Amino acid sequence: MAVTRHTSIAPIDGGITAPTGFRSAALHCGIKAKAGALDLAVLAVDTFASMAGLFTTNLAQAAPVLVSKRHLDVTRGTGCAIVVNSGCANACTGEEGLANARRMTEEVASALGCEPEQVLVASTGVIGVALPIDRVVAGIQEACSSLAHGRGSEAAQAIMTTDPFPKEHAVRVTTPRGSFSIGAMAKGSGMIEPNMATMLGFIATDAQVAPAMLQRALAESARDTFNAITVDGECSTNDSLFAMASGNSGVVIDEELYPALLDGLLSVSRPLALGIVRGGEGATKVIAVSVYDANTVDEARQVARTIANSPLVKTAVHGADPNWGRIVAAAGRAGVRFDMQRVTVRIGGILLFENGLPHDESAARAAEILKRDTVDIEISLGTGNASATIWGCDLSAEYVRINGEYRT
Amino acid sequence: MAVTRHTSIAPIDGGITAPTGFRSAALHCGIKAKAGALDLAVLAVDTFASMAGLFTTNLAQAAPVLVSKRHLDVTRGTGCAIVVNSGCANACTGEEGLANARRMTEEVASALGCEPEQVLVASTGVIGVALPIDRVVAGIQEACSSLAHGRGSEAAQAIMTTDPFPKEHAVRVTTPRGSFSIGAMAKGSGMIEPNMATMLGFIATDAQVAPAMLQRALAESARDTFNAITVDGECSTNDSLFAMASGNSGVVIDEELYPALLDGLLSVSRPLALGIVRGGEGATKVIAVSVYDANTVDEARQVARTIANSPLVKTAVHGADPNWGRIVAAAGRAGVRFDMQRVTVRIGGILLFENGLPHDESAARAAEILKRDTVDIEISLGTGNASATIWGCDLSAEYVRINGEYRT
Repeated sequence: MAVTRHTSIAPIDGGITAPTGFRSAALHCGIKAKAGALDLAVLAVDTFASMAGLFTTNLAQAAPVLVSKRHLDVTRGTGCAIVVNSGCANACTGEEGLANARRMTEEVASALGCEPEQVLVASTGVIGVALPIDRVVAGIQEACSSLAHGRGSEAAQAIMTTDPFPKEHAVRVTTPRGSFSIGAMAKGSGMIEPNMATMLGFIATDAQVAPAMLQRALAESARDTFNAITVDGECSTNDSLFAMASGNSGVVIDEELYPALLDGLLSVSRPLALGIVRGGEGATKVIAVSVYDANTVDEARQVARTIANSPLVKTAVHGADPNWGRIVAAAGRAGVRFDMQRVTVRIGGILLFENGLPHDESAARAAEILKRDTVDIEISLGTGNASATIWGCDLSAEYVRINGEYRT
Repeated sequence: MAVTRHTSIAPIDGGITAPTGFRSAALHCGIKAKAGALDLAVLAVDTFASMAGLFTTNLAQAAPVLVSKRHLDVTRGTGCAIVVNSGCANACTGEEGLANARRMTEEVASALGCEPEQVLVASTGVIGVALPIDRVVAGIQEACSSLAHGRGSEAAQAIMTTDPFPKEHAVRVTTPRGSFSIGAMAKGSGMIEPNMATMLGFIATDAQVAPAMLQRALAESARDTFNAITVDGECSTNDSLFAMASGNSGVVIDEELYPALLDGLLSVSRPLALGIVRGGEGATKVIAVSVYDANTVDEARQVARTIANSPLVKTAVHGADPNWGRIVAAAGRAGVRFDMQRVTVRIGGILLFENGLPHDESAARAAEILKRDTVDIEISLGTGNASATIWGCDLSAEYVRINGEYRT
């Protein structure tokens, strides 16, 4: 991590509620069938916050995505709370779904004394099924009456679906002009519950940041974290990433401190993004595909993404097979121009392909490295100076089992 | 199949050597380890033929692809023979590989009394390994001395790698101006041997066709057959499709008879293309994804291809799960603009999604249909009049097993 000069970043406890000015509550309202399973969380700002959001690019957008996008537009990026449920995605639910998503924001606004447009909403779980709105409303009322500082870990559990573990992280950023905190939580593990993957991410900071700058920093940090991961190349109807800035630390983020904010966002986002990949459906290994010496960052990213999503590369890594041929073939179909004679392929630093020819004498050493739970694949295209990394995971029979089971 | 008016098409025996003017020979020259396993075939025209070819769009192109493309350029689409081997792809083999591919054409030319540039070459099998050129040369000499009519079935076997069955087909096309035959063979079953998929296809006809028209008909027929299938979305270093026209029937293909030639090519290509999908690695079902009412054929094809390659759709079909949500989500990320409210999704004719809402009452009936070995998925985008179909297959744990086994 490139830390800004004179800025230091240190991990701290507390997850999403580590920064000052945020309270949360999480409970079981009855969306999930399992008794006591947390399925609702409310995150509230003590006063008002700058808000920013990034959403799925899928044409099929769930009701909470449509509602949150509109609310961010209407308020120009200010707000007071976020409400999230798991167990039901409220996607492909028509007018009733939109009404239910709006109702969730209205209930929070009513309890907290703000406008519904100042509340954002996110959902994850089964699609095509209506929310049990009465239970959700009762849950929201209860949650809003029990908001507390320092309870972020429960919220991180309440947003899980089939995630094998909760994902939260927080850091303290110290700059020459004071220090601020950033806390975050995320969920996602492929396509789940059993219909739909959803990646949800929430970031809170007590830095003081104007909405436009918060949006810019969120987008820039996501590019190399939440948007640089893939489990199966699928894109959900509900994917959402939110950021809230309370300003409580008194540290004002201007252009001079922007790099410190960005570094802080990267610091909390990277472990969460990698956690999503490591918890990916059926995943046994994280694969970091780095493409170097490309003409542009976009081209590097495109080649890296094609390799990370290649079923043949993913199965080869699963089987600890140092199969440079599949890597070369995937790179070659990525739609990026380069000269195959100048390409090099390395697995775990071991050179396996160069000048159009294999180094099969190194295959046995590379196979040993492929048995580790994190595998680095490095490709140099030899055409320029740009580079990018995409994080993916292997493809196992367990993925097929999880996603091929009949949904009843 | 839309047959031209006054033209009839009927299946006949004989495979690639059904048309007059073609001889073939197939033998075991020692590339494959298994004794007696056919691994070399030569297809020869009695005199000279028009030749056409389509090749992989992968940047990593194997030596035989580079040599065949050059030969077609040099001769402007005339030639006398094709030589094919299985068991070794001669890909990522550098200068030695190019020399070996050229040597194969030289040996055929020498034996048949033509120029090396009049011979095309194709290879399939392991990549990054040099051909045992001495054995191949001896095999070519033996094959060229034993060329015979009516032996196409052996050639269809000699091009197989891990294909579960040989794929050949032939038809007789009867037009008002006479009749001609078309025979074809193909191989391919995913990524194989165990490194690399390769789709190879060979088509012979005794119609008289100018090279440019043969190339045009080959490209047009491939668009809806060999280029409309997918096993795992991967594209090989060696994919090649060749056509040869001997002219022996005396039927001259001009613009008037072009539709008859095209229909004939479609008739032989479609069953071979579907055979490749049905024999796909780990495949238990063929999935025909048809997209209707799109703005353009390209957009229809793009949406169909995205659905056919979606690991979540493929695993759902494998598990007989009528999961319209995954189909909708895949369509939504295909990069094509449409209004999700106007989309309908049918599985086996059963309506599952309409007006943005599911028809879950039909799920049980759709689940029954999904147990068949061919599944039709139909999506209407509601934006225009164009349509396209892509044929794919399901994703099973067996695919992971086949491709995840350590290569040694």
